[in-house]
Amino acid sequence: MDFGKNKIECSKLKQKKSKRKVKITFANHLATSQNRGLFSLRFPGASSLPGFQKIMSSQSANEDCLGWAARDPSGVLSPYKFSRRAVGDDDVHIKITYCGVCYADVVWTRNKHNDSKYPVVPGHEIAGIVEKVGSKVQGFSVGDRVGVGTYVNSCRNCEHCNDRLENFCGKGVYTFNGVDADGTVTKGGYSSYIVIHERYCFKIPKDYPLASAAPLLCAGISVYAPMMRHNMNEPGKSLGVIGLGGLGHMAVKFGKAFGLNVTVFSTSMSKKEEALNVLGADKFVVSSDQEQMKASANSVDFIVDTASGDHPFDAYLSLLKKFGVLVLVGFPSEVKFSPASLLLGAKTVSGSVTGGTKQIQEMINFCATKKIYPNIEVIPIQYANEALERLINRDVKHRFVIDIENTLKEE
Amino acid sequence: MDFGKNKIECSKLKQKKSKRKVKITFANHLATSQNRGLFSLRFPGASSLPGFQKIMSSQSANEDCLGWAARDPSGVLSPYKFSRRAVGDDDVHIKITYCGVCYADVVWTRNKHNDSKYPVVPGHEIAGIVEKVGSKVQGFSVGDRVGVGTYVNSCRNCEHCNDRLENFCGKGVYTFNGVDADGTVTKGGYSSYIVIHERYCFKIPKDYPLASAAPLLCAGISVYAPMMRHNMNEPGKSLGVIGLGGLGHMAVKFGKAFGLNVTVFSTSMSKKEEALNVLGADKFVVSSDQEQMKASANSVDFIVDTASGDHPFDAYLSLLKKFGVLVLVGFPSEVKFSPASLLLGAKTVSGSVTGGTKQIQEMINFCATKKIYPNIEVIPIQYANEALERLINRDVKHRFVIDIENTLKEE
Repeated sequence: MDFGKNKIECSKLKQKKSKRKVKITFANHLATSQNRGLFSLRFPGASSLPGFQKIMSSQSANEDCLGWAARDPSGVLSPYKFSRRAVGDDDVHIKITYCGVCYADVVWTRNKHNDSKYPVVPGHEIAGIVEKVGSKVQGFSVGDRVGVGTYVNSCRNCEHCNDRLENFCGKGVYTFNGVDADGTVTKGGYSSYIVIHERYCFKIPKDYPLASAAPLLCAGISVYAPMMRHNMNEPGKSLGVIGLGGLGHMAVKFGKAFGLNVTVFSTSMSKKEEALNVLGADKFVVSSDQEQMKASANSVDFIVDTASGDHPFDAYLSLLKKFGVLVLVGFPSEVKFSPASLLLGAKTVSGSVTGGTKQIQEMINFCATKKIYPNIEVIPIQYANEALERLINRDVKHRFVIDIENTLKEE
Repeated sequence: MDFGKNKIECSKLKQKKSKRKVKITFANHLATSQNRGLFSLRFPGASSLPGFQKIMSSQSANEDCLGWAARDPSGVLSPYKFSRRAVGDDDVHIKITYCGVCYADVVWTRNKHNDSKYPVVPGHEIAGIVEKVGSKVQGFSVGDRVGVGTYVNSCRNCEHCNDRLENFCGKGVYTFNGVDADGTVTKGGYSSYIVIHERYCFKIPKDYPLASAAPLLCAGISVYAPMMRHNMNEPGKSLGVIGLGGLGHMAVKFGKAFGLNVTVFSTSMSKKEEALNVLGADKFVVSSDQEQMKASANSVDFIVDTASGDHPFDAYLSLLKKFGVLVLVGFPSEVKFSPASLLLGAKTVSGSVTGGTKQIQEMINFCATKKIYPNIEVIPIQYANEALERLINRDVKHRFVIDIENTLKEE
């Protein structure tokens, strides 16, 4: 997960490989998706790494894992059988029961980065039950309720891994469409089971529904990590949340759990009822209403900005009090503002993607203790293609979760 | 100093008042100045406040203060006699011995914001000796060596003032070209004496040269404040400094004093000798050399960016390690970068202007203890016009300081 390096490689790759047909095919998706860039960032350019050819020929005959995969840039998912590695000494074998639907699933099933390694089995918000453990596994036992997030490997020996911030490791491996240390292309949670090193596996407390746990593994940690990093957990402080998708709605919930006064900023008045009555925000501001925005100037200590469409940063920075912090977790095409917006009030703009394994477990435990549950819509795997379309059209409140256990069957 | 509000008012004012002639006259200065925007930010739009007419008529006949003032947008300075208020109960009367030359002096003598209230007596890096004190003054005695910085008043009763962060006070008053609570237009340190409330006066330790103290009051605090706010004082960490003007060279000195490993990033190889041998930086990187920049990727914990010319933020953000912080104290025309530059590595861009009174005194004491002295070129007041020209052309290493005591005389 040497994002920076890979990003550059990815860009180069795009220039070399992009085909007009593909670009036209997906232009509409790119334009309409709220989260179009966020996950492109988390999973950049793995196709520039070695191993693709090797993997295609290294698939063993033991195709006992049933998944749904996209075969080409149409992104259409359909049943697909494949092999996973045998359970190693440090591995756990997890029977997947639920998998959240994240915009990353759109990105790689539809080859939006021109680096998709088909067949692509998406899904990195995985919840399930441990069915087997390797001989050296210490943290898990058969029957444990567990989760897997956006990455399944890292070097485990660098400064980042030693700090349990594996998300910064230069050898990190994404949960799907990544190239693992053994050269195989990783396949995600739209599948019956997964085998991973126990380090990248998280315990789900016993009373926490597995379906609700799934979205924590990506959407949850994506906002929890920066909120903790920037001390957005001080009761009585004020938080603004921009965007009410998978990440934004979790930011509101965390904000309330931290004792913050939460204001939702949205371009659409239609979100007001949802923000105040469903999510429990304290205040709602229509960001296109200049009077409302002006009245909210210098009013919040923090902002979690989950919007990926281009939006006016000067206007949002004006909402912050002195020393205020705006954390960007969305991915607009660019960030642009006047220096005055930062200098006056000594304000801060910061970015964040995912979190380390230690903090992911901490976040899950926090959600269980505080009874914080993502708003989910549980769907059968057969609805996955429509779900991805709806996600592109922002027609989801607030996270689809696929009921893998009960609906992913051999036909 | 409600910068945000005033900035808006200032912008409006510009639209109303700007004259083609003035714009053309100063276009060259605007284009060539490294620091063209920094101080425009610190002293915005005071002319939109009430009081200008009142002041012009309120000048008393007791014109015992000798200064040098600009009379019109030509910015040419010449001798000028004016009155200052009588010493109030909480006031100190300071005989000015030295005054630093800051880019703000160019901005307001030349009416670059169309808000100059002529005659303009510039100067906000003031050092001198207390000659009189009011009956209630507690902190100062006659004979004390003192300094005055960029502001001379504030409400003293808001949350910001109560936190000794008067620089954020909505009723702050700039040291020159500001409108004070009594309606008078403030006049700065290119003058024989000044009268101010003791709160905005700072003690200069006895062994610290007054000439060296002057630049601390603006250039010094402008980099010290954000460095402290962002924990850039942890020995062993690494600091990048962009720009080697009045602010940049102080950032290098503070960095070394804090025990940091300091790298200077400059567009020009000609700065290498100065950076390494004069300022004591550990490393020098030519920022236009892509190979050198690439080799410096992910190498520094912090960056103090003093450059006010437009520069590529993505390139500089790539220099930061994970969680790295770039503090902007310069004022380019805009700040623009890819979200990837922030999100990958969870990096931060922050801004800062000046500092509060508590921290200014702390910074002065720190400089005295650590024997940190700005690099100065002491000049006579008669050289002021040429000095401002040289400042515009970046031809100064690193701060002009006017010897007021010995050269400001009645002719």
